[in-house]
Amino acid sequence: MKLNCDMGESFGCWSMGNDAAVMPWVDMANIACGFHASDPDNMVATIALAVSRHVEIGAHPGYDDKIGFGRRSIPHSSESISALVAYQVGALEALCQLQGAHVSYVKPHGALYNDMMKTPVIFQAILAAVSGLNQQRETPLALMILARVDNTQYQQWAEAAGVPLLFEAFADRAYDDQGLLVARSEPNAVYHDPAQIRQQVAHLAKGQVITVSGHVLPLQVDTVCVHGDNEESIPMVKTLHDDIRAMARG
Amino acid sequence: MKLNCDMGESFGCWSMGNDAAVMPWVDMANIACGFHASDPDNMVATIALAVSRHVEIGAHPGYDDKIGFGRRSIPHSSESISALVAYQVGALEALCQLQGAHVSYVKPHGALYNDMMKTPVIFQAILAAVSGLNQQRETPLALMILARVDNTQYQQWAEAAGVPLLFEAFADRAYDDQGLLVARSEPNAVYHDPAQIRQQVAHLAKGQVITVSGHVLPLQVDTVCVHGDNEESIPMVKTLHDDIRAMARG
Amino acid sequence: MKLNCDMGESFGCWSMGNDAAVMPWVDMANIACGFHASDPDNMVATIALAVSRHVEIGAHPGYDDKIGFGRRSIPHSSESISALVAYQVGALEALCQLQGAHVSYVKPHGALYNDMMKTPVIFQAILAAVSGLNQQRETPLALMILARVDNTQYQQWAEAAGVPLLFEAFADRAYDDQGLLVARSEPNAVYHDPAQIRQQVAHLAKGQVITVSGHVLPLQVDTVCVHGDNEESIPMVKTLHDDIRAMARG
Amino acid sequence: MKLNCDMGESFGCWSMGNDAAVMPWVDMANIACGFHASDPDNMVATIALAVSRHVEIGAHPGYDDKIGFGRRSIPHSSESISALVAYQVGALEALCQLQGAHVSYVKPHGALYNDMMKTPVIFQAILAAVSGLNQQRETPLALMILARVDNTQYQQWAEAAGVPLLFEAFADRAYDDQGLLVARSEPNAVYHDPAQIRQQVAHLAKGQVITVSGHVLPLQVDTVCVHGDNEESIPMVKTLHDDIRAMARG
Repeated sequence: MKLNCDMGESFGCWSMGNDAAVMPWVDMANIACGFHASDPDNMVATIALAVSRHVEIGAHPGYDDKIGFGRRSIPHSSESISALVAYQVGALEALCQLQGAHVSYVKPHGALYNDMMKTPVIFQAILAAVSGLNQQRETPLALMILARVDNTQYQQWAEAAGVPLLFEAFADRAYDDQGLLVARSEPNAVYHDPAQIRQQVAHLAKGQVITVSGHVLPLQVDTVCVHGDNEESIPMVKTLHDDIRAMARG
Repeated sequence: MKLNCDMGESFGCWSMGNDAAVMPWVDMANIACGFHASDPDNMVATIALAVSRHVEIGAHPGYDDKIGFGRRSIPHSSESISALVAYQVGALEALCQLQGAHVSYVKPHGALYNDMMKTPVIFQAILAAVSGLNQQRETPLALMILARVDNTQYQQWAEAAGVPLLFEAFADRAYDDQGLLVARSEPNAVYHDPAQIRQQVAHLAKGQVITVSGHVLPLQVDTVCVHGDNEESIPMVKTLHDDIRAMARG
Repeated sequence: MKLNCDMGESFGCWSMGNDAAVMPWVDMANIACGFHASDPDNMVATIALAVSRHVEIGAHPGYDDKIGFGRRSIPHSSESISALVAYQVGALEALCQLQGAHVSYVKPHGALYNDMMKTPVIFQAILAAVSGLNQQRETPLALMILARVDNTQYQQWAEAAGVPLLFEAFADRAYDDQGLLVARSEPNAVYHDPAQIRQQVAHLAKGQVITVSGHVLPLQVDTVCVHGDNEESIPMVKTLHDDIRAMARG
Repeated sequence: MKLNCDMGESFGCWSMGNDAAVMPWVDMANIACGFHASDPDNMVATIALAVSRHVEIGAHPGYDDKIGFGRRSIPHSSESISALVAYQVGALEALCQLQGAHVSYVKPHGALYNDMMKTPVIFQAILAAVSGLNQQRETPLALMILARVDNTQYQQWAEAAGVPLLFEAFADRAYDDQGLLVARSEPNAVYHDPAQIRQQVAHLAKGQVITVSGHVLPLQVDTVCVHGDNEESIPMVKTLHDDIRAMARG
């Protein structure tokens, strides 16, 4: 089970997050592609950091909305979603190639991620973009989506498109009895207690999640999303990194 | 000798040029990449048009300046120029791949093109971007630049970088006795007389250009740049297309 | 009854509409403010045209979305809507002042206009912006909204805020039996027959509209919105201008 | 002698500077207007902070270049410079009016400021914008520029335009024997030693500056520019604030 983290969300001379501090403890860097955040120069710097730490690079495309940081749903046709995603993945791939690296997966950002999980036509438009790019690649790009108790439908669509899926869970988000994330507007939607976060990751490593009402649900995940955007979060990421290593060693 | 034309310079719902009318008569489409003009959707439409007419696709990257249409020099470090170019080429390449097509060359736009021809460090930054991308390609991207009487220096740099060059001339621009374009601020810098334009193309096909003072200079060109941005220009492009075919047939 | 028309929707070197041709025949110019369209230079040019024709100037603020031309709803808090509108009105007012002119009303654009008519909290956020600006003005800005059969609620809100309302109808849009515009997705939502358009304007001048089912509804309007964005629309605007003059003369 | 400070340079969710900490110790806030930094919401928040601390509000317009933070010269015609400045000042004025406040001066930002001091035609274009706005104001906007040993020419131009000038010096920048700022590229261009900064402000308060070579030059200044963009700078601003108060008390 790998740790993934959103990275490269600075823009021009505005900096965000502490990528250098968190990069050593994660396995996968979701790198912003210039639409909701970042720009070619910041992308180059983030790729360099990932390469130096041997971290897998994922494209983190978002809606074209810097003021809203890609957190606002903006209506798009299906074709526009495909173009939006392919454009950003291609841009990041080219900047990776300048450093001898490659994009290995795609994880949509913010409102685009949420819309993908809520709206099949958006999921399929993103899938179409990744699938189209995979026609030209030896190693196919994977698409990272939110793990659910039952992923059958997503797996069927992805298989038909020739796109491997990566399922992710969140280390610090409460789950309800349907296995969905508790909305951020609810109290207790986000865990702040390190012990609770470590416990959730320990359960996820066993293919389980404990819901807010105390039920145990099965949840198969490939990767856990962590955050590096504040002072306290960075030691937490290191702790989770060490915990997962320890669990792997048994 | 091929005809190349700037294409895909619409933006959102603002349209520019008449790509559909000019596409049948050119060999190479320089497609804007979303920085000085265009956006993912317009790029998709322009690629589709080029594919339908079997026209070669070139990336036409520019400064990030829609209000100035990429015609204003904006100071950049050398590294930023490389990132700016690679980002745009990669974005276009990905959108081409969705349609089973590929970018085959790069022609910088507007002020970036002029800066490249004036400033060796900018030429080399662009070369570095193209060269880096070529490491990962079976068929290398070419770089299209302005043909000069003596291209030795450019050829040495490009050869060292493993980047093929394409030399272009302008069908409707007057040349001075150094073989440079007469500045647009000068009277008679631009030819409007169809007979004069056809004559210039006929000379270029023989590796020559007649300067404003009537001298004959040698000028080796791979391609001639034409324009499709107004009503009168489109029949002109068709005429040049037919002239070149007729010359080729001998 | 005055004619109003959206104007100044060019952007950078992309032109849209034929403002110069339509300006002589309208009474009110709704001028884009740089968010969904236009930029400072195009605004200056559009103001100059309105001033030269003694046409009233209205601010036409939209969502910050050039790619979508302000036609996509973008979620905003109430405070953000007020700031968005005041920013654009203030920018246009300053550019007017450089030419000795003033903004006299505000008409939101596209999705912002639709959202205002659908969502009371957005209507009130816009009202708050206009009301705040009116504290500092001798002549208050009016707010232009869609005329409905019963405008009581809007009038109460506006009166409490000290903002005069202007009610507009559309010359070429079909109305349903509730006095609402037939959605553009429906067949016959838009009138193309000049006779039908002239007839609708003649009815509106008498405070009436004939619905798609043939009913007569009362509809009090201060102004009728016309379009100048295509070749055929400009003679139509002139005809409506002449019709209204003729009706006024009795 | 007043302290002025650049403020409101956050953008969307990217924050910059610590305006809340520095606002209590300055007299004049130069507020970014959405072109090189900020957006309507951040402008509203910055105005609120200035109003709460009874700090004078200045418009801080820049080139339309967020990626370059307004630090890159972008070619503009004279008319475009006027429009660029008026647009931004008007936008800020409107947002101030919503809070019962007003813009009282204009200080161009970054490359626009430097270009204004280097290029008379740009100075005059900015002057034209401010002058045009002043036609409609009871209290005229002032224009803040860099104090020089001899300001005669600027004063003549400004007087003819009816624009009051405010002359500023920099607390932490070294001056050469011509009374110009030592270029940042030079060593010792910027003072970091608090004692040296306090001494420079003490001299400025007496109408003098000590140059890098130890000469005493006369320099009449209305205001001193300070920075609040890092941890150490904020206590420095408080110290200068206290020093100036103490000097004023005698």
